[in-house]
Amino acid sequence: MEYDTIAAISTPMGEGAIAIVRLSGDEAIEIANRIFKEKSLQEVESHTIHYGHIIDPQSGITVEEVMVSVMKGPKTFTREDVVEINCHGGLVSVNRVLQLVLTNGARLAEPGEFTKRAFLNGRIDLSQAEAVMDLIRAKTDRAMNMAIGQMEGRLSKLITSLRQELLETLAHIEVNIDYPEYDDVEEMTHNVLIEKAGYVHGEIEKLLHTSNQGKILREGLSTVIIGRPNVGKSSLLNSLVHENKAIVTDIPGTTRDVIEEYVNVRGVPLRLVDTAGIRETEDIVERIGVERSREVLKQADLILLVLNYGDELTIEDERLFEAIAGMEAIILINKTDLPKKIDLERVKILAKSYPIVTTSLLEEHGVDDLEEAISSLFFEGSLEAGDLSYVSNSRHIALLTQAKKTMEDATFGIESDIPIDLIQIDLTRTWELLGEIIGDTVQESLINQLFSQFCLGK
Amino acid sequence: MEYDTIAAISTPMGEGAIAIVRLSGDEAIEIANRIFKEKSLQEVESHTIHYGHIIDPQSGITVEEVMVSVMKGPKTFTREDVVEINCHGGLVSVNRVLQLVLTNGARLAEPGEFTKRAFLNGRIDLSQAEAVMDLIRAKTDRAMNMAIGQMEGRLSKLITSLRQELLETLAHIEVNIDYPEYDDVEEMTHNVLIEKAGYVHGEIEKLLHTSNQGKILREGLSTVIIGRPNVGKSSLLNSLVHENKAIVTDIPGTTRDVIEEYVNVRGVPLRLVDTAGIRETEDIVERIGVERSREVLKQADLILLVLNYGDELTIEDERLFEAIAGMEAIILINKTDLPKKIDLERVKILAKSYPIVTTSLLEEHGVDDLEEAISSLFFEGSLEAGDLSYVSNSRHIALLTQAKKTMEDATFGIESDIPIDLIQIDLTRTWELLGEIIGDTVQESLINQLFSQFCLGK
Repeated sequence: MEYDTIAAISTPMGEGAIAIVRLSGDEAIEIANRIFKEKSLQEVESHTIHYGHIIDPQSGITVEEVMVSVMKGPKTFTREDVVEINCHGGLVSVNRVLQLVLTNGARLAEPGEFTKRAFLNGRIDLSQAEAVMDLIRAKTDRAMNMAIGQMEGRLSKLITSLRQELLETLAHIEVNIDYPEYDDVEEMTHNVLIEKAGYVHGEIEKLLHTSNQGKILREGLSTVIIGRPNVGKSSLLNSLVHENKAIVTDIPGTTRDVIEEYVNVRGVPLRLVDTAGIRETEDIVERIGVERSREVLKQADLILLVLNYGDELTIEDERLFEAIAGMEAIILINKTDLPKKIDLERVKILAKSYPIVTTSLLEEHGVDDLEEAISSLFFEGSLEAGDLSYVSNSRHIALLTQAKKTMEDATFGIESDIPIDLIQIDLTRTWELLGEIIGDTVQESLINQLFSQFCLGK
Repeated sequence: MEYDTIAAISTPMGEGAIAIVRLSGDEAIEIANRIFKEKSLQEVESHTIHYGHIIDPQSGITVEEVMVSVMKGPKTFTREDVVEINCHGGLVSVNRVLQLVLTNGARLAEPGEFTKRAFLNGRIDLSQAEAVMDLIRAKTDRAMNMAIGQMEGRLSKLITSLRQELLETLAHIEVNIDYPEYDDVEEMTHNVLIEKAGYVHGEIEKLLHTSNQGKILREGLSTVIIGRPNVGKSSLLNSLVHENKAIVTDIPGTTRDVIEEYVNVRGVPLRLVDTAGIRETEDIVERIGVERSREVLKQADLILLVLNYGDELTIEDERLFEAIAGMEAIILINKTDLPKKIDLERVKILAKSYPIVTTSLLEEHGVDDLEEAISSLFFEGSLEAGDLSYVSNSRHIALLTQAKKTMEDATFGIESDIPIDLIQIDLTRTWELLGEIIGDTVQESLINQLFSQFCLGK
């Protein structure tokens, strides 16, 4: 394939020790060579590193002291010639190096364009490319393992084998239609069709079954802490944050206001909603108003309802139980260090099937139990470190859901003995839908849209 | 030299395409090899790049897909063996790679420790090491050029030649004292001493002369915009930001609240103070109170006082002139698109020697004149792109100021015909002070303190 040469800063913006300007394309080495002082980069071996200086060829001024990595295609990230200029890490100097690269023949890369080229040049398929982005955004080890698995092509292999199955079934049908007189061709009988369709349908269901957990791992479990004032919501927040690695992310490309706090609870990333609000006022309801609070609650994946062990249940507590009806929740009875005043039997009735955990956050008791409850509520111990073929991406889930539907249509068609060429249409559609996951039958506009969600320089 | 092997994440924290874990030390290659799957890194050539996977040797789980750069000392940043593990850029995965490196024998590097080793191993001197940090923090091309010049050793060479001069003078004095009977030794006469001391003193003064501009380039010109409500302070701020490259830095390691906005005006970095306040309330005084405003004004390097062309001067305007007495300021008469009501003669009297610029920010007139005024106020056209031997670092300025003093003492001593061994003491002290700039006569505690200001992984 032939494309123009693209370039971008591939390290996060900020002050760091190293910043990298990456180039990819036929002229990558030639362009880098124009601004490299010490030697000809066009004569060096592939996959070698060279110390030297970047100069502005117009003025002769030295711009940076750099290490330049030269990698010739196809054994590169994009399968094209790739040059990485490793700078000292200042915003101004790395920008100046990028400017020089651009004025000397490269084009500024669009977000995700390096990965897009890896896809277009056939090094990775679409689900692998998406996994690259998931890996970058992963908030916990489990989420990372899932992305690594997908990047290594586990999902791709599964999808590819299902599509192969469909293709063979379609071929059989075709032969049966075209050459009904051949005896040695296995007849695509009603039963065989049912069996094949059932197998593909079953595998798709299995994949979809993992998707809820996969999505949680990928995007985090949106978690809201509620309770009356002074029951210990701030303490809960603090002990979750302090006992675990809290990752505060200021997501690049969005406004500075969007700061999300992630807490890693046994590999499950909790996305703590409105933590600033809780810290400031100790009360989400008080702070954002009752109406808005209900909305926040509705969007939550998990609600932690905190009660006071040392106080009687109030009408407000009962109302909070009403507010969370139908949602996933864990009931915390906090302050067991105080003399018991709460009516535990009544709590059990209100809690229905919700898990109940007793804690004394003051004395640091019970947080382990809470974490265990969170983990088993969503994963029931089913998530092993080695079990990596989770479906987590919303696009994949949507496609699998559609594919499941077309397979159901196909199965219904077979059972109803409708003409076989109509069943062919459903099977072909399933084959196409699965192909979209790995990017085999996907439209260009979708590809452009997908990669534009990547970060710059990737 | 022999040190243990250190490791750190050398790219800024955040989501980016590439993140690097850097190792340096005798065991760098051995440690990287323990967690690299595909081949033995101990058998590869220096300055080569290798594609593969990082695995956890305990569990066998694949952690990342990486490119590993192997560079054997002494031709490296630290002069030791250096390995750079180039990851996909997610916070979790790069942290996991770092953890693996640490559990397999490396120690977490302190801030600046890589550069410190470059210094301790004799690859660069102290002023060059400091320039590395300045380069990272540079806000404009001019500041970057200054840092590059210092990193390349321009300041070091100047300082070294002055010290050589002092050393030769001291040697001459020594010979005169020890062997007064030798006729063929040039006698260190009064006149020769005066001349030598005068030369060194003059050179130190020249260097100090550049320091004000150097410091501005390095640290930015702290700039405050003041004026009555509705004179166009927000418009001024916006046109400065929009017509120039605004660099908003959220400095790592400090609190999230400290967000500084830099604007690059003809190579001069303006650090705009309290821009959030201006944007929100259009009035710094109103927002932060009169007392606090005066403090802000006092700390400013430059004040932009905005008046309204279409309105009469008020008592508040006159008070603002009083408030900025003795400071650097530029007077802006904005809104020339309105009919003139302002008393220009009175403004000229109040402004004394301050430059006056008339603008219509609405019609985008006059911003060029303002930028010209800022540039000439501080640099009087004296700063050329090629003129790079500026002194900018506060530590260097303090040492040069002390050295200037000891040279003055020496000169006074010579003129007063005091005993030559007392003059020797002043000259030796100067030699030591200059040595501290390049780290030749510097104490270990100072070195530790200096490098601790660096960013992690550098």
